[in-house]
Amino acid sequence: MNQPIVIIGGDAAGMTAASKLKRATPATEVIVFDRGQDISYSACGLPYWLAGVVESDRRLIVLTPEMARESRGIDVRIQHEVLAINRSAKTVSVRSLVTGKLFEQPYAKLVIATGARATRPPIPGTDLPGVFTLRTLQEARQIFDYMADQLPQRAIIIGGGYIGMEMAETLRDRHLAVTLLQKSPQIMTSFDHEMVEAVMTHLAEQQVQVRTNTQVTAIETSGDQLQVITAETPALATDMVIMAAGVRPNSELAVAAGLRIGATQAIWVNEQMQTSDPDIYAAGDCVEHYHRVLEKNVWIPLATSAIKGGRVVGENLSGTFATFPGILGTTVVKVFDYTLAVTGLTEKQAKASGNFGALGEDVGSTVISHDDKVGYWPGAQPIKVKLIFEKSSGRVLGGQLVGKAGVNKRIDIVATAITARMTLSDLSMLDLSYAPPYSPTWDPIQVCANVALRG
Amino acid sequence: MNQPIVIIGGDAAGMTAASKLKRATPATEVIVFDRGQDISYSACGLPYWLAGVVESDRRLIVLTPEMARESRGIDVRIQHEVLAINRSAKTVSVRSLVTGKLFEQPYAKLVIATGARATRPPIPGTDLPGVFTLRTLQEARQIFDYMADQLPQRAIIIGGGYIGMEMAETLRDRHLAVTLLQKSPQIMTSFDHEMVEAVMTHLAEQQVQVRTNTQVTAIETSGDQLQVITAETPALATDMVIMAAGVRPNSELAVAAGLRIGATQAIWVNEQMQTSDPDIYAAGDCVEHYHRVLEKNVWIPLATSAIKGGRVVGENLSGTFATFPGILGTTVVKVFDYTLAVTGLTEKQAKASGNFGALGEDVGSTVISHDDKVGYWPGAQPIKVKLIFEKSSGRVLGGQLVGKAGVNKRIDIVATAITARMTLSDLSMLDLSYAPPYSPTWDPIQVCANVALRG
Repeated sequence: MNQPIVIIGGDAAGMTAASKLKRATPATEVIVFDRGQDISYSACGLPYWLAGVVESDRRLIVLTPEMARESRGIDVRIQHEVLAINRSAKTVSVRSLVTGKLFEQPYAKLVIATGARATRPPIPGTDLPGVFTLRTLQEARQIFDYMADQLPQRAIIIGGGYIGMEMAETLRDRHLAVTLLQKSPQIMTSFDHEMVEAVMTHLAEQQVQVRTNTQVTAIETSGDQLQVITAETPALATDMVIMAAGVRPNSELAVAAGLRIGATQAIWVNEQMQTSDPDIYAAGDCVEHYHRVLEKNVWIPLATSAIKGGRVVGENLSGTFATFPGILGTTVVKVFDYTLAVTGLTEKQAKASGNFGALGEDVGSTVISHDDKVGYWPGAQPIKVKLIFEKSSGRVLGGQLVGKAGVNKRIDIVATAITARMTLSDLSMLDLSYAPPYSPTWDPIQVCANVALRG
Repeated sequence: MNQPIVIIGGDAAGMTAASKLKRATPATEVIVFDRGQDISYSACGLPYWLAGVVESDRRLIVLTPEMARESRGIDVRIQHEVLAINRSAKTVSVRSLVTGKLFEQPYAKLVIATGARATRPPIPGTDLPGVFTLRTLQEARQIFDYMADQLPQRAIIIGGGYIGMEMAETLRDRHLAVTLLQKSPQIMTSFDHEMVEAVMTHLAEQQVQVRTNTQVTAIETSGDQLQVITAETPALATDMVIMAAGVRPNSELAVAAGLRIGATQAIWVNEQMQTSDPDIYAAGDCVEHYHRVLEKNVWIPLATSAIKGGRVVGENLSGTFATFPGILGTTVVKVFDYTLAVTGLTEKQAKASGNFGALGEDVGSTVISHDDKVGYWPGAQPIKVKLIFEKSSGRVLGGQLVGKAGVNKRIDIVATAITARMTLSDLSMLDLSYAPPYSPTWDPIQVCANVALRG
């Protein structure tokens, strides 16, 4: 069997798998098809390029097709769309988006790394000029060009999740008047409500007008401006709209090929990142992952999972047994001067999971506020810490942090502790670092654990 | 038995024990004797007060005797020195340093929290005016007053450990010319040598003249200046000398009382922080602690261990069974613009321990350098990461970080992983936080683990 390894998708998961494989077994032929013009760029960096923090979109590109070919020996073919997977023939049907030519590419093993896409809400007007989503470099360039050409003064962001927050900051950095509409009562729903209160105040300070409980029903044009129509407010005039209201896994190829799809609508894979067809692997934002606390599969598309999944695929393809042990959904996000971070389960997730009592009655939580450094240190800032735990065992199930300083990397202590199935008591007795410029003697996480232990 | 709980020493360990106990069982009578004038202050903050970063020495005081008495019901008696422990009579002999009065104080249970002291090297001249140690607030006040009165222009620091580093920065902040003498070939000996190379260069940039392999043999006066005599250099003229060359546990009372003393010369305690006399507990810098990786007792006096030990004592005295699971020696230190952090075993410690092959042949290590943030983030700074591991099992034994940004709290991920006996592979697959302003997609610690795994 002399067929190549074929990878669909040249972003984090696909290129990590390809690179790992080529490093381990350089003789293996690896072909990567990507329908876009760019591979391997930092999608998470896009808001910062648009804000001007990162000076050029070229800086976001980790690897060009030429670099991948020359330095890693990976045969990258951009502007090639895979239309179908033919499992019995072990081929993929590919179309060149440049020549229009259609061909069949045989594979020895196939890797699906097709990622996810931003969704447009099912309302009229989402395809009007000046209305954007932001997930790909291509989409970011459209926003960049529109801002350069049209000099918009006002923007409406639909959706108060990570992208919504980051774009609010980006657009304020660009001096636009920003309104953010969120259909649910709370922004940042991957946090418990008390953790986003200070952020709501801060957004107001930063002149971001946030309207929760506001459902957009249409986007219209009115003269040379856009109008966002909601059920709750008068029509809102604006110059541009960013739709940051949802993402969806690109699992259509897998569905059409009859591969197992999870309840999350993302591709199911086993611990080795193998789909229900042992000759087909999948990784990245198109797959669901095992959640180490929920103990079931979830769909949380993150770059950190994509690179790990890609590496596991590359190792297995090169003959080294490797497994992906699962995720905790650990995330950190910058919202102007605030940093928010979360890992494991939120209180509402833990209670709704049914894993800790049918009504979540075995879920406990404690919230404290404590300086990030010794209290006498100039500029010490309060951090709010929430720990979620199983009452009967004390096992830590989740953690959340919010503050203006000292949040970064602190959440990872909780993530590591949860991975090790530590209890509040274990957390409290961890030998963590301390010096006055950096931390109080009891780390704020331990202060929270100590308060929780007191009951 | 209506006798009180007596605690010798009113600093972190003693006051934590007292506070925990009074909160749990308010009716218990608790007497704390301290021979000094201050209790419960941040000794680690002293260099920063001397530097002017912290505006007043009062800011370093966590609790005054009056506050302890009024808000916590703890009977604190400063300027009272305990001279002896009479175990059979269950009393301590106490002298008031104000009145000179001597009395016997009966105890139901006793807690020894006598701390540690800075040692003076056994050479002539260490008691000359202008020659100081820095461990207590009293000693810091002497330095403060000397600097205010004498306006020294030059200082020599003897010893290149934590206090030596912090005082180098303090004295440069105060615009003194600073020379640091270290008898061994390396400063910061709790790190492996390659981790302090950049710091050596940085100290030179900061105009701290460091002389390693330099042994001080005497300190002399010459006119109105001091002369530091070494075997390796001409006499070094200076205006003040800081001796930061060692500390020793205050275990003399325990020795005299016949309590078990460890090979470290510090007081031996069991997991409950009980000495060899079940009626006597001990905690803080005067005790040795179980090292979770070395699997034997070590003496590493740190505030973080003192508060945990104090809490365990307080809990046990109040009838709640509590244990201290041990330490890793996790430490972070600021050296001008650099942050250094360490946890677990250094490579040299691991190899010398005999725990990992008679000659340490099962000890592996990997050092990498990686940006603390995504490479395209403005101001991303390289962090040097070293992981020490057991080759046969992959178990992580220690970690060290050095860099100008992003070191703080990252070491605690390694500390938590070591506590959970994680392997390089476990570390590599941890779900750690990522966002461009904060971290690369693979955390530098994971990059190091990945390189180590590649072998």
